[in-house]
Amino acid sequence: MNPNQAWDRLISSPAAVLATIEPDGSPHLVPFVFAPLDFGVLVSAVDAKPKRSRELRRLANIRREPRVAVLAHHYEDDWERLWWVRGSGTAEIHEDPPPGAEALTARYPAYRSQGLGPWMVIRLSHLTGWDATGPPS
Amino acid sequence: MNPNQAWDRLISSPAAVLATIEPDGSPHLVPFVFAPLDFGVLVSAVDAKPKRSRELRRLANIRREPRVAVLAHHYEDDWERLWWVRGSGTAEIHEDPPPGAEALTARYPAYRSQGLGPWMVIRLSHLTGWDATGPPS
Repeated sequence: MNPNQAWDRLISSPAAVLATIEPDGSPHLVPFVFAPLDFGVLVSAVDAKPKRSRELRRLANIRREPRVAVLAHHYEDDWERLWWVRGSGTAEIHEDPPPGAEALTARYPAYRSQGLGPWMVIRLSHLTGWDATGPPS
Repeated sequence: MNPNQAWDRLISSPAAVLATIEPDGSPHLVPFVFAPLDFGVLVSAVDAKPKRSRELRRLANIRREPRVAVLAHHYEDDWERLWWVRGSGTAEIHEDPPPGAEALTARYPAYRSQGLGPWMVIRLSHLTGWDATGPPS
C-alpha cells in the first residue's frame, strides 16, 4: 500500500490507536479519534469522557518524547478482508485549538456537547499499510 | 475496569494491537491475533501471510527490548458503547511452538492451512480498561 493509499484508509477510519513512549522507555497505547488537517497531519483532542485527569499519560509522554505511532486496522473472521495502516511521526500538544480543530466537532457529533482540550497535532512522516487483497507491503 | 474484567474483555477480542520499541526508542505498531495460555499470558505467531520476511520488525524489536503493550478496543458511532482494554508486560520469542500453542489453530481456522512460527509469548503484568457504561478507570 503506498503512502497515499495508507493515508486515505487511515482517515476513513473513525478511530485508531496511538502509541507514545513512557518515561521508562516502554510503550503506552490508547485508542483515539481524530480528523485530518492536511496530508499526513491529524488533529485530536482530550475530551470530557470520565478520566482520572485531563493531564493524561499520553500528553505527559508526548511533552517529553514527541515520537508517536498510529495504527488503524480492520478485523473480521474472513481473513481475505483484513487490512491495516500505520503511520509514525511526531505529536505536539496545543493548549488552545490549533487551526482546523473544528474538523473534530464536524466529524464527531458527540464532541459538540463536550468541552475539548488540550489538543494534539500529529505529523506522520512515514505511512504504510497492508491489505489482504493486495500485494505484500 | 479491574484486571479480571480487562483480561476477559481482551481475550474475547479476536484481534488487538501490539506495540514494540524500535532501536531508536520510537514505538512500532502491528495488529495481531492471539490465544490465551493462562491469566495474563497470550500466545501469538507469525503466519504465512505475504510479508517481506518472517524475521519481522516486531520480532527483532522484542529480541532487543522485550517490553510491549497490547490494546483492544471497540469503536462505534454511539459513544455510549465504546470500550478499550490495555495490558503492558514483556514478550519472548520461541522458535518452536510453546506449550499451548495449538490454541491458536483452535481459535483461528485460517491458521490450520498455514505454516506458523516463530511464536511470541506475551506476559501482561498490568491490565486495565475503560467502558463508557462503567465508572472512570
